[in-house]
Amino acid sequence: MTAAPFFPNEPKGPKIVTEEIPGPQSKAAVAEMTKYIDTSATKLVVDYEKSIGNYLVDADGNVYLDVYAQIASIAVGYNNPTLIKAAKSDEVATLMMNRPALGNFPPKEWARIVKEGLIDNAPKGQKYAYVQMSGSDANESAFKIAFIHLAAQKRKGAGFSEEDLVSVMNNQAPGSPEVAILSFRRAFHGRLFGSLSTTRSKPIHKLDIPLFPWPQADFPALKYPLEDHVEENAAEEQRCIDQVDQILSTHHCPVAACIVEPIQSEGGDNHASPEFFHKLQATLKKHGVLFIVDEVQTGVCATGNMWAHEAWNLPYPPDMVTFSKKFQVAGFFYSDLLLRPALAYRHFNTWMGDPIRVVQAKYICQEIRDHNLLQNTIEVGNYVYQGLEKLAAKYPGKINNLRGKNKGTFIAFDCESPEARDKFCADMKHEGVNIGGCGPIGIRLRPMLVFQKHHADIMLAAIDKVFSA
Amino acid sequence: MTAAPFFPNEPKGPKIVTEEIPGPQSKAAVAEMTKYIDTSATKLVVDYEKSIGNYLVDADGNVYLDVYAQIASIAVGYNNPTLIKAAKSDEVATLMMNRPALGNFPPKEWARIVKEGLIDNAPKGQKYAYVQMSGSDANESAFKIAFIHLAAQKRKGAGFSEEDLVSVMNNQAPGSPEVAILSFRRAFHGRLFGSLSTTRSKPIHKLDIPLFPWPQADFPALKYPLEDHVEENAAEEQRCIDQVDQILSTHHCPVAACIVEPIQSEGGDNHASPEFFHKLQATLKKHGVLFIVDEVQTGVCATGNMWAHEAWNLPYPPDMVTFSKKFQVAGFFYSDLLLRPALAYRHFNTWMGDPIRVVQAKYICQEIRDHNLLQNTIEVGNYVYQGLEKLAAKYPGKINNLRGKNKGTFIAFDCESPEARDKFCADMKHEGVNIGGCGPIGIRLRPMLVFQKHHADIMLAAIDKVFSA
Repeated sequence: MTAAPFFPNEPKGPKIVTEEIPGPQSKAAVAEMTKYIDTSATKLVVDYEKSIGNYLVDADGNVYLDVYAQIASIAVGYNNPTLIKAAKSDEVATLMMNRPALGNFPPKEWARIVKEGLIDNAPKGQKYAYVQMSGSDANESAFKIAFIHLAAQKRKGAGFSEEDLVSVMNNQAPGSPEVAILSFRRAFHGRLFGSLSTTRSKPIHKLDIPLFPWPQADFPALKYPLEDHVEENAAEEQRCIDQVDQILSTHHCPVAACIVEPIQSEGGDNHASPEFFHKLQATLKKHGVLFIVDEVQTGVCATGNMWAHEAWNLPYPPDMVTFSKKFQVAGFFYSDLLLRPALAYRHFNTWMGDPIRVVQAKYICQEIRDHNLLQNTIEVGNYVYQGLEKLAAKYPGKINNLRGKNKGTFIAFDCESPEARDKFCADMKHEGVNIGGCGPIGIRLRPMLVFQKHHADIMLAAIDKVFSA
Repeated sequence: MTAAPFFPNEPKGPKIVTEEIPGPQSKAAVAEMTKYIDTSATKLVVDYEKSIGNYLVDADGNVYLDVYAQIASIAVGYNNPTLIKAAKSDEVATLMMNRPALGNFPPKEWARIVKEGLIDNAPKGQKYAYVQMSGSDANESAFKIAFIHLAAQKRKGAGFSEEDLVSVMNNQAPGSPEVAILSFRRAFHGRLFGSLSTTRSKPIHKLDIPLFPWPQADFPALKYPLEDHVEENAAEEQRCIDQVDQILSTHHCPVAACIVEPIQSEGGDNHASPEFFHKLQATLKKHGVLFIVDEVQTGVCATGNMWAHEAWNLPYPPDMVTFSKKFQVAGFFYSDLLLRPALAYRHFNTWMGDPIRVVQAKYICQEIRDHNLLQNTIEVGNYVYQGLEKLAAKYPGKINNLRGKNKGTFIAFDCESPEARDKFCADMKHEGVNIGGCGPIGIRLRPMLVFQKHHADIMLAAIDKVFSA
């Protein structure tokens, strides 16, 4: 970790120049956008050219320290010079504008690009990858691979039956069988029809959409501080594991895979212990159910490991690990060649991902290594956690269930109520800090990997000021 | 239309330098790729830097005239200088490497970018857009909008009930209702769980995947030449319309929308008349069912209109029009503000599309206008069609059901058998033409919009040579 700032030209701190947020320029921009698109979720209108490092600049010139980072998806700072240079390279321009149908017509450099962008940065034991377009798409494609694998095991090398071929065209069994994916309560895995069927975070994500009747198990609801609730929390985790075992023993149709986030993010930054995940893997293995780890939000160093599940030291690699967000490329790793379908066109689409995002992943990981950003995140995360512990003691009842100790900067706490949480986010904005919520009452810190102690001091001072008001 | 080539440095014609295809360099590249990724569908390993205009160069230096164009997704030629210049612009670099979460933090220029890239190029009557990541994702998101709209109509302004909020978290009605999307036999709308439920092209796309039990109607199976089967074809189209009417009258659950391709592409280049689509729209209106036109493959000029459905001159615009492929940006247009959900976060995800692909769409459409490529495609399409008519007469039984007259270069014909079709594609490759199939026995022409008469002559000569052998 260098003491010097990674971005020498970063602002010294936030600067709010408009009385209201959004300011007049931002309001005008939203009004113009609303003519064409849905702007109901717009939070800030951004001047991306002027944004730099950890600082986001809005259309009115307000400068925010950004600890939300495009919903946890910017890794190495706005206008990172290495990335901007890469964006203008011949390699990227060629791949962008001659966008290949990668499944049919890959570029001759594709093996190198995939190795440098994906495989060299994969979790231990993950040797192969599929490239997709988004986290939802990555999870759904992993589900499809799981279903294809399950069916292949059942067929034991036999081909498709005539009944398979006919029934599937009517979306009926046996060609389209009743099979399921197991997920956890409060999980978020995306918002397309298959992924949304495994998402259990908030009703607004799911209402009015037809979904598959797939099963769900409780995810542990741990009590904090962890050291004061050791036995209780262990019992809670065992209860959830028993539920998984029960579901897999009794569900009315085969379960092909179980998907889980290392830390449930959108659902409220819900943690579980490494022991929980060891037991989960063992239970899934017992039932012959594939284990998919969704690292869309936890991946790429923020938790203090390149991939959060590496901290568990599992005896076997997960069967699949999905990624997106800070990696910028979406897709999934898989650990066993048996998961690759035997026939062509079983998992296929026109683009099979976007090659420029694979190139981008390479440069992001290069920046991480060159600047030792994993170590930075571990150290700054500990510093932030300690700072929040002090603030929690100073303002009783304001910072509840502080969590994410020794999890890099992947730190969260609960406010008193949904209203208090929303007000906190708004107040922080007026103090020049862009911060995000999760779950019903959570605040989640998602700074970039270039977030340093001097940035943490600014954020902690803003929290102090907001709570003292 | 200019007589001069759009790409002055294009090769004069194809050139095959290896005895076998793939050649040794391509084979080595595939072997290397197979260490990391699924290469079961690889057709050619491409040198994209050397490819130019209508010509694709493979890793062994073989030069192909490309009339497949990355599964119909390259519009204005390989290494188009306008696009390459745009790729290296500050605007694209900034948007690429500071990838916004567009739903929360749009760039201040977003209204302009959306207008120039999407709205200015929209079909008549389509005033609004959502940006997505792929054709599958675009169709699924349109389905979600249709389901949300249907439920909003039923609630008549009332909020969600407690029962809605509880049941939806268990993927059960009433929060997650049983509702459906109607599609047509032989349709292709994508391969995620919702879109795959509407895809009816080939078993291999669907086998072993759980699907929604959604209804399907027959798509007209027209007989060719059209002028010899006028009454028969009209009766066939009416039969399919009656089936739609019957399904919508009797289906056991509400149907929110019907999705249809103007020309079923992957399913075999199956056409229907404008009258069919007029009747379809009227039937859907009668039942209060939304009309989604899937222009993923037909969009962007190849059929002789910017959007294929514009040729129908419908009395009302379709409710939604989905796009991807040659537009490079994926998403959907919608014609009525009532389709935009009233609440935030009903249709939402981290990225909400990729802004650089919206910018790319602008430059693609600018190239089309600057070089009059729509007119070019109409003229060259007619020229190709006439050439194929002559070849069909010269080789009886080889070129069957020639179709796509007055449909730009969106032309197809049937071979004698699946085996004959696959052999034809392979033989054409040895003659230096990369050509694609569709359906069980179809050949689909999907040249770029910069395909000119001198390219057509090369392609027609190659077909002549293959059939004469």
